[in-house]
Amino acid sequence: MAKAPKTAISPTRADDYPEWYQQVIKAADLAENSPVRGCMVIKPWGYQLWENMQRALDDMFKATGHQNAYFPLFIPMSFLEKEAEHVEGFAKECAVVTHHRLEPDPDGGLRPAGQLEEPLIVRPTSETIIGATYAKWVQSYRDLPILINQWANVVRWEMRTRMFLRTAEFLWQEGHTVHATDTEAIEETERMINVYADFARNWMAMPVTIGAKTAGERFPGAIETLSIEAMMQDRKALQAGTSHFLGQNFSKAQDIVFQSESGSREYAWTTSWGVSTRLVGALIMTHSDDDGFVLPPKLAPTHVVILPIYKDDSRAAVMEYIHALRDELRDQSYDGAPIRVEIDDRDMRGGEKKWHHVKRGVPIRLEVGPKDMEKNSVFLGRRDQPKSVGMDRNELVSTIGALLGQIQQSLYDRADQLRKDHTVTITNEADFRAFFTAKNPDNPEIHGGFALCHFADEASIDALLKELKVTIRCVPSENNDTPGTCFATGKPAAKQAIFAKAY
Amino acid sequence: MAKAPKTAISPTRADDYPEWYQQVIKAADLAENSPVRGCMVIKPWGYQLWENMQRALDDMFKATGHQNAYFPLFIPMSFLEKEAEHVEGFAKECAVVTHHRLEPDPDGGLRPAGQLEEPLIVRPTSETIIGATYAKWVQSYRDLPILINQWANVVRWEMRTRMFLRTAEFLWQEGHTVHATDTEAIEETERMINVYADFARNWMAMPVTIGAKTAGERFPGAIETLSIEAMMQDRKALQAGTSHFLGQNFSKAQDIVFQSESGSREYAWTTSWGVSTRLVGALIMTHSDDDGFVLPPKLAPTHVVILPIYKDDSRAAVMEYIHALRDELRDQSYDGAPIRVEIDDRDMRGGEKKWHHVKRGVPIRLEVGPKDMEKNSVFLGRRDQPKSVGMDRNELVSTIGALLGQIQQSLYDRADQLRKDHTVTITNEADFRAFFTAKNPDNPEIHGGFALCHFADEASIDALLKELKVTIRCVPSENNDTPGTCFATGKPAAKQAIFAKAY
Ligand SMILES: [Zn+2]
Ligand SMILES: [Zn+2]
Repeated sequence: MAKAPKTAISPTRADDYPEWYQQVIKAADLAENSPVRGCMVIKPWGYQLWENMQRALDDMFKATGHQNAYFPLFIPMSFLEKEAEHVEGFAKECAVVTHHRLEPDPDGGLRPAGQLEEPLIVRPTSETIIGATYAKWVQSYRDLPILINQWANVVRWEMRTRMFLRTAEFLWQEGHTVHATDTEAIEETERMINVYADFARNWMAMPVTIGAKTAGERFPGAIETLSIEAMMQDRKALQAGTSHFLGQNFSKAQDIVFQSESGSREYAWTTSWGVSTRLVGALIMTHSDDDGFVLPPKLAPTHVVILPIYKDDSRAAVMEYIHALRDELRDQSYDGAPIRVEIDDRDMRGGEKKWHHVKRGVPIRLEVGPKDMEKNSVFLGRRDQPKSVGMDRNELVSTIGALLGQIQQSLYDRADQLRKDHTVTITNEADFRAFFTAKNPDNPEIHGGFALCHFADEASIDALLKELKVTIRCVPSENNDTPGTCFATGKPAAKQAIFAKAY
Repeated sequence: MAKAPKTAISPTRADDYPEWYQQVIKAADLAENSPVRGCMVIKPWGYQLWENMQRALDDMFKATGHQNAYFPLFIPMSFLEKEAEHVEGFAKECAVVTHHRLEPDPDGGLRPAGQLEEPLIVRPTSETIIGATYAKWVQSYRDLPILINQWANVVRWEMRTRMFLRTAEFLWQEGHTVHATDTEAIEETERMINVYADFARNWMAMPVTIGAKTAGERFPGAIETLSIEAMMQDRKALQAGTSHFLGQNFSKAQDIVFQSESGSREYAWTTSWGVSTRLVGALIMTHSDDDGFVLPPKLAPTHVVILPIYKDDSRAAVMEYIHALRDELRDQSYDGAPIRVEIDDRDMRGGEKKWHHVKRGVPIRLEVGPKDMEKNSVFLGRRDQPKSVGMDRNELVSTIGALLGQIQQSLYDRADQLRKDHTVTITNEADFRAFFTAKNPDNPEIHGGFALCHFADEASIDALLKELKVTIRCVPSENNDTPGTCFATGKPAAKQAIFAKAY
């Protein structure tokens, strides 16, 4: 009798996508909710992944001329008041420090004491505190550009949180640059969104579209916000990184003024750009399947896990064989770095151990027992393919780098195909409604995707978007020069935008 | 006429040590005070140094079996109430979050709104929040040990701050481990203080003594605190790292309970250990001189800076020569890593440029002009020696790694000599008073050092120590088995302690 199809993760993506997402995180040991509302604990497997992302991004930032620095966690409340749009954007989600000590209360517990003269905000983003510092550093055009990045934690008091995607505290990097001209600042804004797109595509194996946000979706205080948008497997969009051209808004609010070459006093032009631990959520939702997490090799903490299979009398021989195999694999390289190989010799049932690594997304599993040794082979499981296969041991060693490269590429291709399959051009409201409406309203199936539509202005379609819970993701920067007519109003429209439901 | 002796830093160490320290930080571009009380901005040169420290320490933590993870910034106030000594130790310096948004106030400004039901503390250290998580992770002896480290920012509301040494917010790592037995936990506590000592000696070139804190100086809630203590150039002690054996205090407060192999339910044994950006302060005060910062090569962001010297007609030839030199130097290695070489080709007076790098502590400066080229030589300045010397270019390339090794060693030796010169054994109170009393009370000269004294108990010498502003630094772990009599009370005493004025 055939076994019923079973998956390691329950529910499946098709059954309940949001719950599937939580269960993948749990099964892969990536993170868990903490006792503090909206804050998560990032567990070692998830944190190693984040460290790998950081390392790759940091190298890219340094290659584009940036240096790291560190600015205070706290922002005086008065700093936020200076940029009107900025404060409006963040005031509703600020953690506010009002006291600087605790004292015993009459019930035997504690209460806050030592009230601060001015409340401090836990940084939701650091334009204001960094800008105040830059104002001191910048005197002359010779001090420009300033090209600095900060790796930090930030806090935005979100009411509805979801691990990695939206948490009260999250980890991120924020670049903050100052330039003498608008041209240079715009170039920097574009350079960094391209760095993010490069990272998403070539490290995360995640296809993205670069585009500009419309006015309603811009960063509070920005003149222009560029973003990269990716499609998750439930066909929703996820904004994976943003780069903001801030014009002179923040330099005026914070008095970042320099003497130009000709001697005049000018306000500087600033940018900011960031990606966060949200990328881990994007990675999970891009590649994982109903058996758990799937890691692209370039970011995987472990490339290859070797699982010895033995009885008491064969243990010594098997362990000798796999130690030699591990050492030979570690001498090989993938993408310029040594192969990361681990042996899992824990005392645990073989099936359970195999599924442990499947659920954690390790790209390659090698099961090795006495029978494999006899044939000088290994039993190889690729996380991107359902079936394990026998493979000659020496062939494996000589091709391991190429194999990891194939997995990296196959993950990208699969994600790219999904995106192509669910990206449509829509020219009228009826089609738009149909595209974004589930056929089964009681238990909505996965539906929709990216709708490419010409549109005239945001105000005229606001009600429609609200009704369908659709947002304008971006106005793509490339292949977007053919004018048309607005899908909703019929008015002439210069460009298309991507419309989608979104995280 | 001979030039008056001049130093790049004013005042000198002898003139005003605390002010000299601030001026070195400023001249080396390491950090500055921020607009937020007690918080500093770590500038790129200082942050690169911290990153190098992090990288070396992180490798050591991983080599001793630890993994990184990340826990929340906030701690619910009730968590702090659980461990009585712990809360007493930290309650007076907690930043307390009481509100989660801002709203317009009647004056047109902002005010805190959305009061939290339970205030949140910005972590001063994470035993309580991490312990609450571990309580969920630990069920059986099979779940132990847990060996986790976190890189994070913490906040302790200090009233008197000094950059790097004592700031309201600082960066650090905190290891938190859980063990099945007291023996294993004590071994871990000792292992990690030895890691810190290894890092201090071999990376920072800073001699340290390992010892145990006396009861009055222990971490709040710890059974035993081990520390490494270093001597600064003003002969004060600086505690550079601590490792705590917490016994079952925190596991009882937080219910970290496991089922043992024999089936009984037991409280686990925990440890914690940490070093912080304070190490940057320690590094500055150990090696810097009256001309500025001095970097040990193993932690220097730049090993070698090349300063081209040319007029318009020689520029091209000089630049070609030094680019080739840079590339050859970069192909050499020091301590297993490539030599870090930079060219400073900024348009700036030669003397000013040279002093820029002297003050920033770059270990080796190479000045190269047409005359050096003719002789196939370079003009070499070692930061640890006053005079620059000519050197054959090819000899430099072939010996650069060894040269950096010599500088690293010479810095250690110099610091070790200072410590030896100012460490004395004292056996009576009169000598103790004399040692810790400046000869010139109106403008105290640098005096004192480490006094090694047998002592009976803390209570009996408390008043004397307060009067002299001296503290018991530690009871050294090594060469401390000869009993004696207390220097102050004459009572029998088993061990010596190090007494010193301290940061
Ligand atoms: Zn504005
Ligand atoms: Zn206690």
